[in-house]
Amino acid sequence: MVPVMDKAALEAFLAREFPQVRDDFVIEEVAPMAVRVRMVVAERHLRPGGTVSGPSMFALADVGIYLAILAMIGPKALAVTTNCSIDFMRKPAFGRDLICEARLLKLGRVLAVGDALIFSDGMEGAVARAGLTYSIPPTG
Amino acid sequence: MVPVMDKAALEAFLAREFPQVRDDFVIEEVAPMAVRVRMVVAERHLRPGGTVSGPSMFALADVGIYLAILAMIGPKALAVTTNCSIDFMRKPAFGRDLICEARLLKLGRVLAVGDALIFSDGMEGAVARAGLTYSIPPTG
Amino acid sequence: MVPVMDKAALEAFLAREFPQVRDDFVIEEVAPMAVRVRMVVAERHLRPGGTVSGPSMFALADVGIYLAILAMIGPKALAVTTNCSIDFMRKPAFGRDLICEARLLKLGRVLAVGDALIFSDGMEGAVARAGLTYSIPPTG
Amino acid sequence: MVPVMDKAALEAFLAREFPQVRDDFVIEEVAPMAVRVRMVVAERHLRPGGTVSGPSMFALADVGIYLAILAMIGPKALAVTTNCSIDFMRKPAFGRDLICEARLLKLGRVLAVGDALIFSDGMEGAVARAGLTYSIPPTG
Repeated sequence: MVPVMDKAALEAFLAREFPQVRDDFVIEEVAPMAVRVRMVVAERHLRPGGTVSGPSMFALADVGIYLAILAMIGPKALAVTTNCSIDFMRKPAFGRDLICEARLLKLGRVLAVGDALIFSDGMEGAVARAGLTYSIPPTG
Repeated sequence: MVPVMDKAALEAFLAREFPQVRDDFVIEEVAPMAVRVRMVVAERHLRPGGTVSGPSMFALADVGIYLAILAMIGPKALAVTTNCSIDFMRKPAFGRDLICEARLLKLGRVLAVGDALIFSDGMEGAVARAGLTYSIPPTG
Repeated sequence: MVPVMDKAALEAFLAREFPQVRDDFVIEEVAPMAVRVRMVVAERHLRPGGTVSGPSMFALADVGIYLAILAMIGPKALAVTTNCSIDFMRKPAFGRDLICEARLLKLGRVLAVGDALIFSDGMEGAVARAGLTYSIPPTG
Repeated sequence: MVPVMDKAALEAFLAREFPQVRDDFVIEEVAPMAVRVRMVVAERHLRPGGTVSGPSMFALADVGIYLAILAMIGPKALAVTTNCSIDFMRKPAFGRDLICEARLLKLGRVLAVGDALIFSDGMEGAVARAGLTYSIPPTG
């Protein structure tokens, strides 16, 4: 299966539907069943001490899998997150962007399952790992 | 075991350490191994259509368990979230605050485990359920 | 909502459909959206040292939520586990049965979500906590 | 880092410490921070209809990450599973062995985090995906 939406189409969708977060995320690559998304880390994502907050990392994993689904099924369906399990493994590097490698493991008619690795730009080991499930509403 | 920090002490801690989110959360009740926290829902927590976003609900569950731990062990230790598994079950009611009922199931020397139910104020069934693990650093 | 299957009906279903595990589980109570199930711990459930194994605790949480769903929707539907997140919190007491308190938090048309607390018979704190999601196939 | 235990050493450990499951698992490959383990599927792992049961898949993911940890830190430490989040994505093929690709994402002093993909031998998409956390007790 090949994606039906490319980088430009996904960015246009994000800007139109989620204007409040469009400046947070840059789509770096779209591939079959996978996307890479950069989170442009700003003051509002930080905890005291300069670490990116847990909710911000959750948001990045969530948007990564969401975009990977949309890339495959197109912008018409409204997928909804039903479950996320996330492990926070390392402290992100101070003041660096985060990179999310998201891939789909299952793209069913009703449920999609993906996992995401989040890296601190320039650091080797992943800072977080997440598995997410989305419910895909029936079209029609 | 009884809490070593009460509502006022937890609120002062939140205001001092997390000034950027202090207006989001109101601590409603502190009990042994449990707290109830209200999230004052504002524009910045919403998705298009007026639903509270997933990351905002994650943040509420996270802060709920965090405060339940602090209430028991005091403000000196710096607990860190290591895992969260969250189920999104219902769409929150439009424009309503969220209420988080957080309780600790285990408060060990090294790990604490808790779960949280999140309700949309005035709605019956929980909108989300989360289990969280925190790593508690050694005091020294 | 009241259960459509009682203890006797659930036990008969378990004996008929899952003969290989019917001796492992005793249904102790059935209530709206909840069941209590005992696991009769035997040699085959143990790890060296006499602790109940993780997979056995997983199996108990799984059967608990499964029976809670069946009690509400009847024996005709074939619910399938799609996700389980389980925290192992304490070592079960040596040679004691396990008790699972399972409750449903959501019973939708397509997905059911429940959580389970597992206790070692006679011990106070829960030994494990699990959240499970089941996919409910369409009838008809 | 290179493994300190190879295939033969891990198999001898498994046979000695877990005699009751040693026939279930074959270690196929050991690499830095990763192992591949085969589950030799037998009658006792099946649900009616011939599908491998959820608890059996959980057991395979658990043993896979456990062996990946032991391979790196040696047989002396007793690692304990503290959390597992598992997604069941596809029905395993009838009567086929399962293959678990386990890798460690973090191997800390106190906690290890890994993920596992489980395949039905000969089938393309993964049947299950799991993330696991282990607590590593202090040596000394």
